[in-house]
Amino acid sequence: MDLKAYLGTCGKRIDRALDRFLPRATVKPRTIHEAMRYSLFAGGKRLSPALTLAAAEACGGEAETALPAACAVECIHTYSLIHDDLPCMDDDDLRRGRPTSHKVYGEGIAVLAGDALLTIAFEILAQAKETSRYKMPALIRELATASGSRWLIGGQVADLQGEGKKITGGELKYIHRCKTAALLTASIRLGAMSANVSPAKLQNLTDFGQSLGLAFQVIDDILDVTQTTEKLGKTAGKDVAATKATYPAIFGLERSREEAHRLTVAAHDALEPFGKNGATLRAFADYLLMRDY
Amino acid sequence: MDLKAYLGTCGKRIDRALDRFLPRATVKPRTIHEAMRYSLFAGGKRLSPALTLAAAEACGGEAETALPAACAVECIHTYSLIHDDLPCMDDDDLRRGRPTSHKVYGEGIAVLAGDALLTIAFEILAQAKETSRYKMPALIRELATASGSRWLIGGQVADLQGEGKKITGGELKYIHRCKTAALLTASIRLGAMSANVSPAKLQNLTDFGQSLGLAFQVIDDILDVTQTTEKLGKTAGKDVAATKATYPAIFGLERSREEAHRLTVAAHDALEPFGKNGATLRAFADYLLMRDY
Repeated sequence: MDLKAYLGTCGKRIDRALDRFLPRATVKPRTIHEAMRYSLFAGGKRLSPALTLAAAEACGGEAETALPAACAVECIHTYSLIHDDLPCMDDDDLRRGRPTSHKVYGEGIAVLAGDALLTIAFEILAQAKETSRYKMPALIRELATASGSRWLIGGQVADLQGEGKKITGGELKYIHRCKTAALLTASIRLGAMSANVSPAKLQNLTDFGQSLGLAFQVIDDILDVTQTTEKLGKTAGKDVAATKATYPAIFGLERSREEAHRLTVAAHDALEPFGKNGATLRAFADYLLMRDY
Repeated sequence: MDLKAYLGTCGKRIDRALDRFLPRATVKPRTIHEAMRYSLFAGGKRLSPALTLAAAEACGGEAETALPAACAVECIHTYSLIHDDLPCMDDDDLRRGRPTSHKVYGEGIAVLAGDALLTIAFEILAQAKETSRYKMPALIRELATASGSRWLIGGQVADLQGEGKKITGGELKYIHRCKTAALLTASIRLGAMSANVSPAKLQNLTDFGQSLGLAFQVIDDILDVTQTTEKLGKTAGKDVAATKATYPAIFGLERSREEAHRLTVAAHDALEPFGKNGATLRAFADYLLMRDY
């Protein structure tokens, strides 16, 4: 299983689909459609939507059928990055090695580009096929809940309010569960739903997604401490500079690395019932753990 | 037909439903749920969601069935006000006589409260009943399109970019169509869809909504010029102070009043096929025209 090749193929497929789903950059008003595309096609790894496709395949479905859900998830992911980078939030100038949306288009347009990507996510998801087990209301609820005030947005609130304060390990885990694991898990679940997955296997994949999402975030925190700005494509050490709580800051590097490993093992265990069909998802977990942290 | 009484009844009904649909203010993280409720229960007139209920009834349906759509529309409306009021947009300190969200909670939380209301709008709409003609994908598409980059958000983009510039009457009408008429029309259409309206009558209501929405905006512009801050509950003359284009600024007061009247007549004409069942919607048009402008 060559995950890099798989990610490359998925990435192109998702890019083409996003290009189809998004209004052309020439549609009036041009600025908003340019800004939406600027952030959406900024060289992101497409990890979440690739997981959507992989989950669909792991459940015996077609990647093609899962494309609307995958694109919806990527729009949500991108909107959340644009808003998180705003001066009134994390105040970041660089993202994926390029100036952030508000640096290029100004704050007003950046807020609106985020709003527009959030809105179009649901428009795109509405084009997904229903299955006998999972109808459109369930799909919409899945995405809205994970992106909503209790999870994705709730995590950003807690993150914002924790800045400059000493927060506990429990609070940090809450933030990671909300900000990263919830949407990653929904990405996987939506892919599985497009393949009409059984409720039992959906639960396995939920466990998998939560472990994988937390592992991913812990490793991101570690990388922020140990790597350079150039390699990351964003301002390294920034979280520490802002006395923002990170895993290594609270638990130390060693324990953070152990936690990342433990979570990856838990992710693997959750895939056990999938046998050979779980190979791609297993490779995702390995890929995350084998990043150079 | 006593529209004030009707609006009062609808308002209470919508408030109760919103209170049920929204997470309690005590749900973690509290700040975001408090902020969502602060703006949602700020004494808004509930004009759009009341139109949703009235349209359902005009088409022989039940207001009860239209409640999820009505609440979804109100969440979108409120989110757009929160984001429009931000310092990077219209920079407003007052809304409905109270400090705006970012004045109370800070800019970061205000952005997130808007995001959360936008997200929950789709979660709420997903609880609507499908009919034989209108399935969930059509309902989601209706709301997402009207709120998206071509309409509601597109209008705010054009508005933002027009500030301080001399814009044409055509451009101003474009902004009004996008910012006000599109969501108002979607509010009405969603109500009609909940009653399984025929395609022909849906088109009549679309015409009605567009005329009504434009009339409402023209009158709002007029009121901003002619009324005091106290009476409006927002900073009067602000649009003029910011050399923002308004109907009276471009066309003069007299022609603006004529336009408002013309649009109201067009709205009435569109209701002709509804006969007696259109009484409430007709009263809405009169109510808008009879505001003291």
